Amino acid sequence: MHKISIIMGSRSDLEIVKEAVDLLKAFKAGFEIEVLSAHRSPKEVAQYVEAAPKKGIRVFIAAAGGAAALAGVIASHTTLPVIAIPIETKSLKGLDSLLSTVQMPAGIPVACMAIGKAGSKNAALFALEILAISDKKIAKKLLCYKDDMRKKIKKIKVKI
Amino acid sequence: MHKISIIMGSRSDLEIVKEAVDLLKAFKAGFEIEVLSAHRSPKEVAQYVEAAPKKGIRVFIAAAGGAAALAGVIASHTTLPVIAIPIETKSLKGLDSLLSTVQMPAGIPVACMAIGKAGSKNAALFALEILAISDKKIAKKLLCYKDDMRKKIKKIKVKI
Amino acid sequence: MHKISIIMGSRSDLEIVKEAVDLLKAFKAGFEIEVLSAHRSPKEVAQYVEAAPKKGIRVFIAAAGGAAALAGVIASHTTLPVIAIPIETKSLKGLDSLLSTVQMPAGIPVACMAIGKAGSKNAALFALEILAISDKKIAKKLLCYKDDMRKKIKKIKVKI
Amino acid sequence: MHKISIIMGSRSDLEIVKEAVDLLKAFKAGFEIEVLSAHRSPKEVAQYVEAAPKKGIRVFIAAAGGAAALAGVIASHTTLPVIAIPIETKSLKGLDSLLSTVQMPAGIPVACMAIGKAGSKNAALFALEILAISDKKIAKKLLCYKDDMRKKIKKIKVKI
Amino acid sequence: MHKISIIMGSRSDLEIVKEAVDLLKAFKAGFEIEVLSAHRSPKEVAQYVEAAPKKGIRVFIAAAGGAAALAGVIASHTTLPVIAIPIETKSLKGLDSLLSTVQMPAGIPVACMAIGKAGSKNAALFALEILAISDKKIAKKLLCYKDDMRKKIKKIKVKI
Amino acid sequence: MHKISIIMGSRSDLEIVKEAVDLLKAFKAGFEIEVLSAHRSPKEVAQYVEAAPKKGIRVFIAAAGGAAALAGVIASHTTLPVIAIPIETKSLKGLDSLLSTVQMPAGIPVACMAIGKAGSKNAALFALEILAISDKKIAKKLLCYKDDMRKKIKKIKVKI
Amino acid sequence: MHKISIIMGSRSDLEIVKEAVDLLKAFKAGFEIEVLSAHRSPKEVAQYVEAAPKKGIRVFIAAAGGAAALAGVIASHTTLPVIAIPIETKSLKGLDSLLSTVQMPAGIPVACMAIGKAGSKNAALFALEILAISDKKIAKKLLCYKDDMRKKIKKIKVKI
Amino acid sequence: MHKISIIMGSRSDLEIVKEAVDLLKAFKAGFEIEVLSAHRSPKEVAQYVEAAPKKGIRVFIAAAGGAAALAGVIASHTTLPVIAIPIETKSLKGLDSLLSTVQMPAGIPVACMAIGKAGSKNAALFALEILAISDKKIAKKLLCYKDDMRKKIKKIKVKI
Repeated sequence: MHKISIIMGSRSDLEIVKEAVDLLKAFKAGFEIEVLSAHRSPKEVAQYVEAAPKKGIRVFIAAAGGAAALAGVIASHTTLPVIAIPIETKSLKGLDSLLSTVQMPAGIPVACMAIGKAGSKNAALFALEILAISDKKIAKKLLCYKDDMRKKIKKIKVKI
Repeated sequence: MHKISIIMGSRSDLEIVKEAVDLLKAFKAGFEIEVLSAHRSPKEVAQYVEAAPKKGIRVFIAAAGGAAALAGVIASHTTLPVIAIPIETKSLKGLDSLLSTVQMPAGIPVACMAIGKAGSKNAALFALEILAISDKKIAKKLLCYKDDMRKKIKKIKVKI
Repeated sequence: MHKISIIMGSRSDLEIVKEAVDLLKAFKAGFEIEVLSAHRSPKEVAQYVEAAPKKGIRVFIAAAGGAAALAGVIASHTTLPVIAIPIETKSLKGLDSLLSTVQMPAGIPVACMAIGKAGSKNAALFALEILAISDKKIAKKLLCYKDDMRKKIKKIKVKI
Repeated sequence: MHKISIIMGSRSDLEIVKEAVDLLKAFKAGFEIEVLSAHRSPKEVAQYVEAAPKKGIRVFIAAAGGAAALAGVIASHTTLPVIAIPIETKSLKGLDSLLSTVQMPAGIPVACMAIGKAGSKNAALFALEILAISDKKIAKKLLCYKDDMRKKIKKIKVKI
Repeated sequence: MHKISIIMGSRSDLEIVKEAVDLLKAFKAGFEIEVLSAHRSPKEVAQYVEAAPKKGIRVFIAAAGGAAALAGVIASHTTLPVIAIPIETKSLKGLDSLLSTVQMPAGIPVACMAIGKAGSKNAALFALEILAISDKKIAKKLLCYKDDMRKKIKKIKVKI
Repeated sequence: MHKISIIMGSRSDLEIVKEAVDLLKAFKAGFEIEVLSAHRSPKEVAQYVEAAPKKGIRVFIAAAGGAAALAGVIASHTTLPVIAIPIETKSLKGLDSLLSTVQMPAGIPVACMAIGKAGSKNAALFALEILAISDKKIAKKLLCYKDDMRKKIKKIKVKI
Repeated sequence: MHKISIIMGSRSDLEIVKEAVDLLKAFKAGFEIEVLSAHRSPKEVAQYVEAAPKKGIRVFIAAAGGAAALAGVIASHTTLPVIAIPIETKSLKGLDSLLSTVQMPAGIPVACMAIGKAGSKNAALFALEILAISDKKIAKKLLCYKDDMRKKIKKIKVKI
Repeated sequence: MHKISIIMGSRSDLEIVKEAVDLLKAFKAGFEIEVLSAHRSPKEVAQYVEAAPKKGIRVFIAAAGGAAALAGVIASHTTLPVIAIPIETKSLKGLDSLLSTVQMPAGIPVACMAIGKAGSKNAALFALEILAISDKKIAKKLLCYKDDMRKKIKKIKVKI
């Protein structure tokens, strides 16, 4: 089974990353999760990313904040798709994380999601959308998930 | 063959979108290109997106500027991956395009690239990275492309 | 009687939308309220908007945050006036909601109000100002409302 | 016939305002145009706005840049709808014009359009949408205009 | 004695304005304080500003937030110096207040201070600096105040 | 006669500062002009500012861009009023100049004008407004100047 | 022994500066700490900076917020390296502190770190990196410190 | 002799980097220059940085734009000081480059200079200030350079 790898730049990112994890669990998708830092453990990032394909990993999800180099550094070592979650920061509220993630130079793509929890959930969904191209089961589940969202929102009645 | 669909919100986006087109041509990837507007032709967008899978389309690339709703609207009609190119705007220089593209709500992912030409080229590369998961030829070409970039940069000698 | 339709992108927007609701109630204006998402229930948005004129709806108020496509998507399906309330977001504080709402392309106007509660109250007032053009009762009430504001502020005495 | 009043804060805004003027001419709408400054001729603004209803004016369009107080000042003197066009500025590119226009306090609504030419065209369209509620001719023309936009975009074929 | 007039756009600005008030009291300066809104009570602003010189007022201090037109509107009615305090806002944190205050058009100057409490204190100090040009007592007090600040900071010993 | 001192951080600021100079000349105000840098010639700034009162200088105008410390440094050496012109910068368009000028700490006020030419003209006008409190001739000229602006704008007729 | 001088613009910066202090203590580096304000005690800053080399000081660390002139003013009086910590501000969240610190004019370099605590720790580390060039003990400790970071991050196991 | 290494992320950065090169030449400092990309040639960056100390390199200068990871990646492989020049970008004008450079996480310091040419010149000066601590010749030259700047600015006479 194809697997998704989730890499966090810091343990403190787990609160946000949990959104992605919970969704992947709900889809019973194969995934693994690591704490690896582009700045504090660059060699471990390189080694991990290069060894990933043999373990069945087909998509990376990277979560980092501030001068968020992680997703770009992962992308520098692979041609597998890299999805990024910019983590909200205390002072600049994630604008720094967003710009340092999304403004990648030509040649090294990174797929940037929204800042924070919405971005985390969507990173998982987008990883599944990628795998769904060659995995009909996931494709079917995604259609159900989308349909459920639509039904849920239709049921809401606002009383005022 | 799996195909990529490129949708522009306006004909004026073509100058930027050309970067993606040229790269897809260089990779001999299957793709088609349309001008469809989330705001001026919303039904055509819905119809086109819903009919796309039967034509072999597996990935969307959407280019739009300002209140750039196009990628999100495409994503609202499909579970195929949607990649977005925020187009630079005259006054706010693409900050509006970027934020209205990347800050998607949980449930409807859009993969946002950099503003402008770098983002356009990377949208094409990212679409190919997605298709490469189940297409070994593309995967091989991507490795060559990456290796070429590395070699080119190694050859540069700066004389001062 | 002409009616105003208030559409929220998410139930969580109700706290802000309540400002508009309370003002419309105080004016005894006709209105209805729905939760409909440009991204999660796009067809329902289209159907609802197209069916609205027959129900007497003459103005739309749309509240959404983040990549806030809702007002623009409503405007893509109607030539009735659409007023937008950008909802404050956690990380970017509503700058994303504001830019994705206000920077509409030529041809599809959306009337953007301030971020959050002030914008919500003003959306209701602006809807009433529109209806007042052909409804003398509302016009009269608006003049009274404005006069009351002026009187209230004149009465304030600051002791220091 | 109901009329639209266009007020510019400075003669130099005419290049942008022309977009609105051209559209109103194409619709054969009744309108008049003035240069009046919230800061340099505040009394003239007050007098003009208060005298407007008797001349048949039902909607205001205000164009101003920088610390753009014009639309808000007009709104302070009337309960007719006020639509605003934030003009792009040299240094801050209209972000100043946008924020000083859109962030109105509760009680005094202003309908803010996009910065610059798109906003100018949309201000005219939005004024027409307002008048169309009680003017079937304008309503019909707006539907045609919208339909034409859709058709035009459908005809575009991109050759690559 | 020359007096300073402090005008607030809203009663809620008092918490910030208190910094200015306390400093003026400490200097035993003549001042008065009013709540007047550029948007909700524009005529009262005009009347008050025009009547001010006869009451001995020589400097205005204006505090407002959001689309903060107050200082500019005061300046439109007088050639006395107008000092502005941009009030912090909930969503945009006072960036809106700052830009709508400071970016005044040529011809109508407003002296903008920092956002919030520091700006409030400095507005009072700056008003005193203006009056001190023709009032030796105030000039002397300002020198003492400045000297005290210097001495206070020299006394601070950090233990670590 | 009371004099105004204009200090530029760099010779390249002269293009902007000329707006202030031209206005002071038109008012036949006493003024002198220097190039002094808070960063490159800090002692000369201190000496010049401290010697200024004896030369009759009563107001300072400081023009600087980027990390624009000049106005604040002048203010640190005097209790005379300091007016600042933030100069537009190449990359950040003067947002850096604006924030580093306006966000002064409590205790050391600086009166910030708009970025660029409008700010330069207004710095001169504001300096004159300060001197006018104790100089009836300047006060009279300012009233005429304001009245002329109003008349000029009233004469503008837009033909469309 | 070469020493590092830490200067804070205000006592309230100590909470942030403590990060630097704790790291310098852990490295047993020589340092001293002062509260000196570019705006409130400019002469004391000049005197302190000029006297510093004789006391063995070789590097400055300056912490300031808002219109943060401190690091630049220190740099104006010395050719020793000056490292800056932009302090987070209440309204603009340190964007003002960052831009007024980092955008120094050519000729007077300041080494800007991140806003807040991360920047404070890194200021201390960077000062040590500078001293390490001619101090093998510090150089060795820095290698150990870096290695410890890497090991710590490798040990983290995320359970989900 | 201790050497400075200048690394550019792209050949197109040379126009900006030339400012640093010219200054180092004027100081007759030892330096070398390379084009190496954090994203396109990550292994070459790692190898080059690790081999640098043996070649006598004691300071790095890194120039990069957009999602500017270069300086941070260099810093991840060394405990030598890393100075960064954020390169101005087309759309976001270098705000992206600045934030992705300066907002480094605790543990991995990068010394960020101003965006563009001023930052480039200052990067060279700051590298020399670092080397000057253990090199009296450079220290002396820096004092002369600073003194020359002061003299130059004192000589400027503005005629108006």
